[in-house]
Amino acid sequence: MASDLKYAVFGGGSWATAIVKMLCENLDEVGWYMRNEQAIDYIKKYQHNPSYLSSVEFHLEQLKLSNDINETAAYADVLIFVIPSAFIHDELKKLTIDISDKIVVSAVKGIIPETGLLLGEHLHDFYNISFENIAVIAGPCHAEEVALERLSYLTISCADANKAQAIASALNSDYIKTKISDDIIGTEYAVMLKNIYAIAAGIAHGLGYGDNFQSVLMSNAIREMKRFIKKMHKMKRNINNSAYLGDLLVTGYSVFSRNRMFGNMIGKGYTVKSAQMEMSMVAEGYYATKSAHLLNEKNKKKTRLPIINAVYAILYEGKDAKKEFKKLTEKLD
Amino acid sequence: MASDLKYAVFGGGSWATAIVKMLCENLDEVGWYMRNEQAIDYIKKYQHNPSYLSSVEFHLEQLKLSNDINETAAYADVLIFVIPSAFIHDELKKLTIDISDKIVVSAVKGIIPETGLLLGEHLHDFYNISFENIAVIAGPCHAEEVALERLSYLTISCADANKAQAIASALNSDYIKTKISDDIIGTEYAVMLKNIYAIAAGIAHGLGYGDNFQSVLMSNAIREMKRFIKKMHKMKRNINNSAYLGDLLVTGYSVFSRNRMFGNMIGKGYTVKSAQMEMSMVAEGYYATKSAHLLNEKNKKKTRLPIINAVYAILYEGKDAKKEFKKLTEKLD
Repeated sequence: MASDLKYAVFGGGSWATAIVKMLCENLDEVGWYMRNEQAIDYIKKYQHNPSYLSSVEFHLEQLKLSNDINETAAYADVLIFVIPSAFIHDELKKLTIDISDKIVVSAVKGIIPETGLLLGEHLHDFYNISFENIAVIAGPCHAEEVALERLSYLTISCADANKAQAIASALNSDYIKTKISDDIIGTEYAVMLKNIYAIAAGIAHGLGYGDNFQSVLMSNAIREMKRFIKKMHKMKRNINNSAYLGDLLVTGYSVFSRNRMFGNMIGKGYTVKSAQMEMSMVAEGYYATKSAHLLNEKNKKKTRLPIINAVYAILYEGKDAKKEFKKLTEKLD
Repeated sequence: MASDLKYAVFGGGSWATAIVKMLCENLDEVGWYMRNEQAIDYIKKYQHNPSYLSSVEFHLEQLKLSNDINETAAYADVLIFVIPSAFIHDELKKLTIDISDKIVVSAVKGIIPETGLLLGEHLHDFYNISFENIAVIAGPCHAEEVALERLSYLTISCADANKAQAIASALNSDYIKTKISDDIIGTEYAVMLKNIYAIAAGIAHGLGYGDNFQSVLMSNAIREMKRFIKKMHKMKRNINNSAYLGDLLVTGYSVFSRNRMFGNMIGKGYTVKSAQMEMSMVAEGYYATKSAHLLNEKNKKKTRLPIINAVYAILYEGKDAKKEFKKLTEKLD
């Protein structure tokens, strides 16, 4: 099935670049939309992305590059979106063609701030895509290690197992192992929530908590994630599978994670604004914190989310990180 | 209750020293047995352990030091054993007094090689101690962070909740939070198994696997640990509690773990013998690997233990680490 379908990746960052690389191991041609025309020109000239994973060399004959989102969307059967959640709403608005018959894959790590929806839900609600045609790619996977061809595992979730398997086959290679799952909502929330916990890990580190506490934080985080996801979509799942726990760990323990870095600066006393200016970007987990908090507020019976609530109080209510974490330590076990 | 009981620690290493420090926060006097007489003299002269956690200063009036195990055992009501599992059998043989009415606490991180038993079981079988008088101290807790008074969480397991609480109260302080559990066997096995997984993490790192794989390994390790412990002692437990998952993470992600270091050398091509000589010690997980493997072999219906079996094949059957881990990667998900 994989060979019959045309694939395209939407996005120009490191994770998008990594996914294009994975697809190029299997497919003759891969569509690649980037909004930055200079980056496209650069790739055409030098065969690699100037800003992300620049060690990865592409074969131009395999790439169908475009900075016209409609052209790329029209080309492909499987559209893989890898655009930061903060920008995806604006990008999708550029779509004028009907994508309702496409298979749409989310590799977006957060909730769309404008609608408070996961990309899958957003595409279903606004682009008329049926849930059987929506899939999610989850890690644990740093893009940088894909560039180095270090063994990594991905989970592809889709309600339709055949489609999940087709996408998995297109991504599989010597260094990429895939498994499939039918828990689209759960894996998409896990991808989002882990970034909040990475911010929490960063704050803890910035405040001077050590490795002993970090392990307690992660052990509480996975239990909190389980409660959150169960509330959003109850089904049988093993929260210790790599798409949930593995992804939490690779992010929460990574000193390169932008979310952890952001948290670390907050813990060290930076204000939210100054940390964001210093990083010249907004960490995904910043938006995810607000979304997760709001989603829980909407529940009639709220789930106990001590870590998310602490991060929310610090990032959005101007609460003192040191005091909030002191309170948080009483709630963990 | 805590204040009525006399406590003593048996052992002179870093974890023993950390536990003495915790007890000294609460108790007027703590018994401390060390077999090394020079170390005792040094502590009496300089107020700190010469070899471990040497930044921790003790008040001599609080310490009842002795290198006579019978003297210390006779003194205390609660005997906390913190001796490496490879040496504990010989140490216990020195006991001539009856300890059957004592509360005995295991802070030993492995199985006693001579009997293939956990310390608790060993004490029950050979020293006539009832299971209500046996407790376990579990992490996640690096001794080095206790020395720095960094917030750490301990779990105290005992079939008798009052005794667990008494011991917990004796260890509690500004920087130590405790919880109690009735899963003695489960926590004691978790403490032992995590060292095997730390060796596995080290081997993977030595072979050049990256962070993506490490997170998959840990996510599989906690599921394997759950299966193993369930087989040994079936009861309701949340394997993601800090005594299980937290302890696994603090060890598996620690670059200072001796088990991980040992595994790393194996992964880099050292033989078992040369790695042990280089480290001038034997990592606890080395013995634990054999014990866990044997315990599973004894089961009529074996549990699936791909990680432990891979480590066993490398450490005890002379199998090639690279090949074994290649096979292992096919079994993980």
